[in-house]
Amino acid sequence: MTEHATVKAALMSQAIETPSWAYGNSGTRFKVFARPGVPRTPQEKLDDAAKVHEFTGAAPTVALHIPWDTVDDYAALAEHARDRGLAVGAVNANTFQDDAYRLGSVCHPEAAVRRKALDHLMACVDIMDATGSRDLKLWFADGTNYPGQDDIHERQDRLAEALAAVYERLGDDQRMLVEYKLFEPAFYTTDVPDWGTAYAHCLKLGPKAQVVVDTGHHAPGTNIEFIVATLLREGRLGGFDFNSRFYADDDLMVGAADPFQLFRIMYEVVRGGGLTADVAFMLDQCHNIEEKIPAIIRSVMNVQEATAKALLVDRAALADAQRTGDVLEANAVLMDAYNTDVRPLLAEVREEQGLDGDPMAAYRRSGWATKTAEERVGGQQAGWGA
Amino acid sequence: MTEHATVKAALMSQAIETPSWAYGNSGTRFKVFARPGVPRTPQEKLDDAAKVHEFTGAAPTVALHIPWDTVDDYAALAEHARDRGLAVGAVNANTFQDDAYRLGSVCHPEAAVRRKALDHLMACVDIMDATGSRDLKLWFADGTNYPGQDDIHERQDRLAEALAAVYERLGDDQRMLVEYKLFEPAFYTTDVPDWGTAYAHCLKLGPKAQVVVDTGHHAPGTNIEFIVATLLREGRLGGFDFNSRFYADDDLMVGAADPFQLFRIMYEVVRGGGLTADVAFMLDQCHNIEEKIPAIIRSVMNVQEATAKALLVDRAALADAQRTGDVLEANAVLMDAYNTDVRPLLAEVREEQGLDGDPMAAYRRSGWATKTAEERVGGQQAGWGA
Amino acid sequence: MTEHATVKAALMSQAIETPSWAYGNSGTRFKVFARPGVPRTPQEKLDDAAKVHEFTGAAPTVALHIPWDTVDDYAALAEHARDRGLAVGAVNANTFQDDAYRLGSVCHPEAAVRRKALDHLMACVDIMDATGSRDLKLWFADGTNYPGQDDIHERQDRLAEALAAVYERLGDDQRMLVEYKLFEPAFYTTDVPDWGTAYAHCLKLGPKAQVVVDTGHHAPGTNIEFIVATLLREGRLGGFDFNSRFYADDDLMVGAADPFQLFRIMYEVVRGGGLTADVAFMLDQCHNIEEKIPAIIRSVMNVQEATAKALLVDRAALADAQRTGDVLEANAVLMDAYNTDVRPLLAEVREEQGLDGDPMAAYRRSGWATKTAEERVGGQQAGWGA
Amino acid sequence: MTEHATVKAALMSQAIETPSWAYGNSGTRFKVFARPGVPRTPQEKLDDAAKVHEFTGAAPTVALHIPWDTVDDYAALAEHARDRGLAVGAVNANTFQDDAYRLGSVCHPEAAVRRKALDHLMACVDIMDATGSRDLKLWFADGTNYPGQDDIHERQDRLAEALAAVYERLGDDQRMLVEYKLFEPAFYTTDVPDWGTAYAHCLKLGPKAQVVVDTGHHAPGTNIEFIVATLLREGRLGGFDFNSRFYADDDLMVGAADPFQLFRIMYEVVRGGGLTADVAFMLDQCHNIEEKIPAIIRSVMNVQEATAKALLVDRAALADAQRTGDVLEANAVLMDAYNTDVRPLLAEVREEQGLDGDPMAAYRRSGWATKTAEERVGGQQAGWGA
Repeated sequence: MTEHATVKAALMSQAIETPSWAYGNSGTRFKVFARPGVPRTPQEKLDDAAKVHEFTGAAPTVALHIPWDTVDDYAALAEHARDRGLAVGAVNANTFQDDAYRLGSVCHPEAAVRRKALDHLMACVDIMDATGSRDLKLWFADGTNYPGQDDIHERQDRLAEALAAVYERLGDDQRMLVEYKLFEPAFYTTDVPDWGTAYAHCLKLGPKAQVVVDTGHHAPGTNIEFIVATLLREGRLGGFDFNSRFYADDDLMVGAADPFQLFRIMYEVVRGGGLTADVAFMLDQCHNIEEKIPAIIRSVMNVQEATAKALLVDRAALADAQRTGDVLEANAVLMDAYNTDVRPLLAEVREEQGLDGDPMAAYRRSGWATKTAEERVGGQQAGWGA
Repeated sequence: MTEHATVKAALMSQAIETPSWAYGNSGTRFKVFARPGVPRTPQEKLDDAAKVHEFTGAAPTVALHIPWDTVDDYAALAEHARDRGLAVGAVNANTFQDDAYRLGSVCHPEAAVRRKALDHLMACVDIMDATGSRDLKLWFADGTNYPGQDDIHERQDRLAEALAAVYERLGDDQRMLVEYKLFEPAFYTTDVPDWGTAYAHCLKLGPKAQVVVDTGHHAPGTNIEFIVATLLREGRLGGFDFNSRFYADDDLMVGAADPFQLFRIMYEVVRGGGLTADVAFMLDQCHNIEEKIPAIIRSVMNVQEATAKALLVDRAALADAQRTGDVLEANAVLMDAYNTDVRPLLAEVREEQGLDGDPMAAYRRSGWATKTAEERVGGQQAGWGA
Repeated sequence: MTEHATVKAALMSQAIETPSWAYGNSGTRFKVFARPGVPRTPQEKLDDAAKVHEFTGAAPTVALHIPWDTVDDYAALAEHARDRGLAVGAVNANTFQDDAYRLGSVCHPEAAVRRKALDHLMACVDIMDATGSRDLKLWFADGTNYPGQDDIHERQDRLAEALAAVYERLGDDQRMLVEYKLFEPAFYTTDVPDWGTAYAHCLKLGPKAQVVVDTGHHAPGTNIEFIVATLLREGRLGGFDFNSRFYADDDLMVGAADPFQLFRIMYEVVRGGGLTADVAFMLDQCHNIEEKIPAIIRSVMNVQEATAKALLVDRAALADAQRTGDVLEANAVLMDAYNTDVRPLLAEVREEQGLDGDPMAAYRRSGWATKTAEERVGGQQAGWGA
Repeated sequence: MTEHATVKAALMSQAIETPSWAYGNSGTRFKVFARPGVPRTPQEKLDDAAKVHEFTGAAPTVALHIPWDTVDDYAALAEHARDRGLAVGAVNANTFQDDAYRLGSVCHPEAAVRRKALDHLMACVDIMDATGSRDLKLWFADGTNYPGQDDIHERQDRLAEALAAVYERLGDDQRMLVEYKLFEPAFYTTDVPDWGTAYAHCLKLGPKAQVVVDTGHHAPGTNIEFIVATLLREGRLGGFDFNSRFYADDDLMVGAADPFQLFRIMYEVVRGGGLTADVAFMLDQCHNIEEKIPAIIRSVMNVQEATAKALLVDRAALADAQRTGDVLEANAVLMDAYNTDVRPLLAEVREEQGLDGDPMAAYRRSGWATKTAEERVGGQQAGWGA
């Protein structure tokens, strides 16, 4: 294959997972704004996700969030997905919204609460079994708000115990993705605040425990691509929760705040051999004020554009410049790829797949927004239920 | 008076305003935890606030938040407060929770929305008239989430227009306190993001427009006491919204995250002549996981302790060390006051006022928590209504 | 003119000032690395600056830094510049390197030190008179390292006094650019830490006092383009010190760390009417490990590329989307310009000016680096002299 | 023993290591201010360190920095220390000041430079053998300034190789302390930027490789005590480099910027069993504008005060409150210890050791500053030599 063909092949094979909850309403503690046409059921979320995949050709799986996507029959839900060309992606456990979790879930000082949380995690693996999902995504809101509130050390012990129990339960082809986050909703300590903590736990658990990098979960100034490169080198990068931030965990569309950072991350993915199914490329975003489906389409496209630029880096020229210590030339080689307008290339990729080169325009033309706004009347719009 | 007596007199005269909303439920976008006994009405919030004042002797006013404290008869509400030894403090306008405000309020691109927001601000001044409140607190959630979303310049024009209209409406003894905030709920631009923007608007409005400093609303690394000193020097410090933060706008109890910072702030207040009625000392906090009334009592005590330490600074010795450039000695003079245990002094101050020296213990003994948990059954607990 | 022609005309007229000190050695407190061919005199710095202008056609002025560029005859220095097609740009005062300035310069507790600093500022205006420089750039390293070290309020009084004296001395066509910086070298308070402080001083001084925005001088998370828009709206944006940062005041090449931010800044400049001679576009960078002249050429090009993209924004379409509250479309209009590869356009602009389309390649071919490395042997290489 | 006696015994046994370089001059890239009496030789630094130990009784070891403390005869230097009641502490390797290290040391792209750096590290172990030092402290300035400059992954490989070679060379009673730092002097990537990276390398090396926490080397918002608790739980906390910061790596006196944070850190040390010889309590500071010896005495006292407060925490009451989820009470127990004025207790501890209760006053009375200022004339004052 020519190099151009190689790049296109890589782009065609890249799959980006969209999260069921991004199709529902979200907001801040100040306000959640509703919007006509927002799904009311997990099935309707999948219907919307199918539109994203229909027009991008790049979003074949959908992450579930339990209990937001609780249904009676998970096999039927998976069938609903399959009927629309989709598969169920990661199952996201939620151990932060029950009244019992005021002081934590698996790290809570009381054994009964920890047990309840663990039961939920086990139930999520059941759902994985029923839906064919490979990945259990574990983000714990656990932490403390005030110095002294609880014992940091003991909370780690409790966490380790819960993780070990869940790890034991995983099937051969299932994985556990451990997510870290600097803060929020806990405002003093968070029990998995950084990649080091997630990594240390994963090491002790075994190879099916992998770290997931949420691009909005770091302290200001953190070099995320360094973490990505390190985790890939260690064989512990399970995937991404993509979104973008200017301040905290803003959960804006990926690539919206710092497209150059996204490119640098994707470059480390490409360079570290991470453009494979072993690294899950997931979105985790909040479309608080903008239309949800177009925002998700845009996000998928933003990841694709960053990936395309990363693939276009002249690796040989870069290695030469690095080897000879030519700082400016090495930087220039990288920037040359970044400064390239890859939109025509991606349009070409889409057209070769039988898609419209412009997924946003195609979606607009489809009338889906109008149709769902008209049909999805009554009921309770999906949201976080905070 | 001896110096000791001067310090005690200053402490006795310090008034700290508590916010009605801190007595209700609050949380994060992830979860709001309810708690037995939480007030269901503005009147019950005042009942709770009266307890804080009863045991601290230092919290004689209560800030209202409209529409969270909407009542039919504001004069009667003020009477309810007076009957309990309280007065109505600042009126906080809320222009972020109506569905119309998705893209802003007074800075919204549509004139109709701006008009609606302005009407609300005017209605708040009416409430000030009815309740005897002096201060209109203006915090605008206005901003944008994405680059390009709206025009920064024009939004400032719209803001200026609204502020001017409200300023015009203020009575002779009324003030407008303009609050700034780095981010949240807007995640790209905020229309009043820093003290400079608030100050610039206030300058153009006139002397009744003052800046309010929320201690949780700054970028990491911001030296808040410098801003306090500067605003006092400029005659533009209208007051504080006290709380504390480790990360973003965490809204923890004031003094909980960085008591030394609070001391430095109070030192600048004392040094700049700000320990007067012209500077409103208000709390603005969220007691997401802890009991609310005791948390507010603790917060009042924390402000008092920081103030006591600030008053104990040996100003003459400090000035000497500063004048001679003795860096270590100047720092040592300040630290000597900070390292002093002022709790006995404050107990003495309370006892001289006929109060228990330990407000927390006195509140615990009062049985108020049990009583309200038993009596306040049914109805809708107060909260932010997000 | 067609729109394309308008954009090109704007790009042709943009002038970017390079700083004399960027041609010399620089480093961190850990190490300054020398490099063959680095200038030893102000004249040799101008010789290097002339090369940057020769190949970019966009860097006709050079900022001086006193005392690093002290010469006996400033008129002769200006003549040296003119002979090479250059003019003297801003004069940068240095009140931080004399042993007297350990505790500050114009804010120092001792009057004698303040006087010494003021004399230096006045001497800088003399140099402006002699060289035809328009702008006096005032960055004060003044501040304190420890709480209590000095009085914040009094230091502002001293600062105001010095600024007023200098303002008085300015000629009719001269300006004073007041720079702010969050921290470094002072690590507790800085006397001009933010745009608000600089602005407040400028307001009191008069229209010849303008704020200068150094893009590396803000707290993490600060929205710089908001400040730019605000200062332009207020008529107080005197210019930029361009560079880029990942962490603190890293002084990397402008556009190297966050090219999207640079674009957003330049968009606000264009939108606010700032693409005129009233806003000085200056570089202020440290090429610690990379070749200096090529780094400066790259930096000039980065500013040009960001400007080109800003000029390409479809303002009418943007205004439409903003007016109708179409968040995604407004963002898309902006991003469309950002995602455009403007390098061919800029090559065209250069070629129309009789320049090589690729300034880096042209410089490489010129042999200047080899020539100066061979000729500039002996003597003391220029640097900061810290 | 009574509890009081236990606390005093713990305080008496705490040893705080002072760094030789803190007795010399330091500064920022802007200026290094000299000061009369500053040592000119490693021996004079030890003479000064002996004064700190004489008056505090708590600083019996001194860290060396090679090559800043290069001497011909290291055994004689150790003897010089012993004669003054001191011992040699950690040996700090410096691989950042040679001209060869412009692009890194052990991570440099060229093997010859890596070899040179490794030779230096080996020479440092030789010095440990000669002086009886236990700890090799490894802080690498290695990193890159620009995206693309070098390959993150390969630099980790080179780092691992060098660390393994040094580990192999260590004697049975010697340790390797691996330090991490977010940034500076590298401004894009740093090769050991966080505790996770240091920890991952240490894990692979073996038990003699331990992580050292410099309190000034984290991103804004990082919860340092969490890292301390985690490393203690993992058995990988080798020690501290104490200092304090408001912004970046400010290297101010420990406890000067956030004494509450220092207390929280020391609480986790006490709680995690870290108050033993296995955790080295070292200072690493820059006294840029203040007198050095008094600043170091103050710093030692600040660590002692934080330790005393940590020891005073009522652990049983805290555990009770934590177990029952009483957030406010748990926080109150911790704050009660923090708010205690421990200065009288520490004076008592000193007096029981035959020392003056006030080390600062005793030092002032000793006349050492005057004596050294008079005697240490001529020669080259010690500094960083940047």
